[in-house]
Amino acid sequence: MPRRIITLLTDFGLKDPYVAQMKAVILSINPNAEIVDMTHQIDKFDIRMGAYVLSSAFSYFPRGSIHVAVVDPGVGTKRRAILIKTMQGCFVGPDNGILALAVKKAKGFIECFEITNAKFMMPEVSTTFHGRDVFASAAAYLSRGKNPSQFGPPAMEFSKPEFSKIIRGKDIIKAEVIHVDDFGNIITNLTEDDIESFRGEGVLRVELAKVSHVLKICKDYADVEPGKTGILIGSHGFLELFENQASAAETLGVQTGDLFALKTNQH
Amino acid sequence: MPRRIITLLTDFGLKDPYVAQMKAVILSINPNAEIVDMTHQIDKFDIRMGAYVLSSAFSYFPRGSIHVAVVDPGVGTKRRAILIKTMQGCFVGPDNGILALAVKKAKGFIECFEITNAKFMMPEVSTTFHGRDVFASAAAYLSRGKNPSQFGPPAMEFSKPEFSKIIRGKDIIKAEVIHVDDFGNIITNLTEDDIESFRGEGVLRVELAKVSHVLKICKDYADVEPGKTGILIGSHGFLELFENQASAAETLGVQTGDLFALKTNQH
Amino acid sequence: MPRRIITLLTDFGLKDPYVAQMKAVILSINPNAEIVDMTHQIDKFDIRMGAYVLSSAFSYFPRGSIHVAVVDPGVGTKRRAILIKTMQGCFVGPDNGILALAVKKAKGFIECFEITNAKFMMPEVSTTFHGRDVFASAAAYLSRGKNPSQFGPPAMEFSKPEFSKIIRGKDIIKAEVIHVDDFGNIITNLTEDDIESFRGEGVLRVELAKVSHVLKICKDYADVEPGKTGILIGSHGFLELFENQASAAETLGVQTGDLFALKTNQH
Repeated sequence: MPRRIITLLTDFGLKDPYVAQMKAVILSINPNAEIVDMTHQIDKFDIRMGAYVLSSAFSYFPRGSIHVAVVDPGVGTKRRAILIKTMQGCFVGPDNGILALAVKKAKGFIECFEITNAKFMMPEVSTTFHGRDVFASAAAYLSRGKNPSQFGPPAMEFSKPEFSKIIRGKDIIKAEVIHVDDFGNIITNLTEDDIESFRGEGVLRVELAKVSHVLKICKDYADVEPGKTGILIGSHGFLELFENQASAAETLGVQTGDLFALKTNQH
Repeated sequence: MPRRIITLLTDFGLKDPYVAQMKAVILSINPNAEIVDMTHQIDKFDIRMGAYVLSSAFSYFPRGSIHVAVVDPGVGTKRRAILIKTMQGCFVGPDNGILALAVKKAKGFIECFEITNAKFMMPEVSTTFHGRDVFASAAAYLSRGKNPSQFGPPAMEFSKPEFSKIIRGKDIIKAEVIHVDDFGNIITNLTEDDIESFRGEGVLRVELAKVSHVLKICKDYADVEPGKTGILIGSHGFLELFENQASAAETLGVQTGDLFALKTNQH
Repeated sequence: MPRRIITLLTDFGLKDPYVAQMKAVILSINPNAEIVDMTHQIDKFDIRMGAYVLSSAFSYFPRGSIHVAVVDPGVGTKRRAILIKTMQGCFVGPDNGILALAVKKAKGFIECFEITNAKFMMPEVSTTFHGRDVFASAAAYLSRGKNPSQFGPPAMEFSKPEFSKIIRGKDIIKAEVIHVDDFGNIITNLTEDDIESFRGEGVLRVELAKVSHVLKICKDYADVEPGKTGILIGSHGFLELFENQASAAETLGVQTGDLFALKTNQH
């Protein structure tokens, strides 16, 4: 059986048997699957955080990889299970938006199917753990070379929630904090292009949690003194506020979902 | 050398070198072993929690798998190291009850041996880390095809603590909370059969932490509104109290080991 | 491509996409690499803790293993990226001391190279994530059999900070707490030889956090009653203070870096 990578992203945490059960199901169906944990520490039920982490990591994996993402508050309800094939890999998960950012970013969308074929599920499907009984199982069969169209009917549409907004004005651009990482770095939804017209002389004027800051545009984290705050384009391609060797999120009192604005000097 | 799965369950946590040392020992002895983490976040010294998680996960793995479980407050004392073979896989760990629930559940108990043969241990066995020096090493040799009987003398008996009780009365059944998972779901030791005579019209009357609740018997977590509490048979086969998209354990102030009762309407 | 072990040690934590990105880069370059997590929970920016954990674990891995260690507050600055070859494996990481303890302990130092060859890096190297763009990539190429000398010029020297001191007096030896593990065990930088002249009748006189203790020299953790404190030579070869089934560090109020002294009776 082919050696294909299956990545797992969930909000299950690591202390319970749930992740091991998913891996056991996969290895029982395809002993040659190469399972890689993307993360199991998505905040509980936080589809947006899951979507962000998935979209940040998947593109570094080889093209044939299969990415399973399970943040699934609606498990057992009528929300559909879906499988999406792109040129950059396959995605498997609930149709609640968890896959949306990654699929949008992936090159070459090909097709989307609903997963309804019981042949590719566990013999007994619980109503509370589709991560194991539906998604892990489907991914494992997919890794054995089953054709996506065998899993169920084509799905014309899938859920694409608007996770974050960017509002562009003449002298201001309003954006959002989309992730606070484990270092306390504050990642926004702005890219290098977005900030072009807001650059001062090596600085950006930022409003965050109703406080204004003038922040140095840095090339790396050590470009400001330890304990000082700076701004840069992170390794993910987004604008990121950081504190050298400390948590910017803690210092500035910022959480995911907070608003963030760039202003010109005129403002 | 054969590609066999070795799972690891410990209370070591993930920040120290201990888990990596176990994996290093295994891969040094059998480079083809496929190591899967069951969990390393069992509460420190909590044999009961380790036994529950092991028993919940092992049966999903392929039959030839070897399961190493190390929650071992008595390391270095006279407690024995044991190896148990069943039709559903082998179990390796200290003889303190950690393996008991899984072996009870596994089909086809075959034999139990004490691990005493120094040939299958690390050259120097510490008195404080048998996870590495005895159990990981033994599991690795077992995965290479060594016969269980080579590891030491047959063990006639092994430790089977009574982890939880069920007391059945006419109008009441008293049981226990055996696990609180990372979502805050409250898992009890009752199964679907146990609750048969206590079903009201779609509800169960529950007493927990001295408070009475009438809880809806649900088919999935979304069967009550977000923030409301319900009850269902979980994916593990046990009766489970949950709160939709929140922690029932936090809301109800419940911990593992707490008593739990079902009552009929007459009571 | 050869099946070689690559271990990863970082301070990235497990909730973000960073570790998965490193693994994706490695598996894209060498699909047969066997990746083992050493830990990703080094305290943020704590080079000393990273160096300790790396030095404790690497020697248990097969000799051909490649160990990547990334605790890297100076990422993107002029601190060099290095690759060190020893008889017991290769080490890859920033030249900030993270590799120093392991290399000192490894048998057969062979050579050290600066990593400057862009052929073995990601096509675009960010200034904030060399773990992915430089170190994971270099390790993966190394695992494919590339010669260390191809990665860049020989490095004559590399950073070897003095992480901890031992001061030896006639009646006293002053040392340091080098690690507090997840159990709360307090690990010092003293070895069995160091304590020889301080042994009383089965006890050691210890001063820690300005408090004196007379501690039993134990053979295992159960050699004192639960809740009592003892001392032993741990599985790592260092003097370790512990509390049976509880956290000595919490009870004694001790942290990594605290001073620690042994005294003779005369003192």
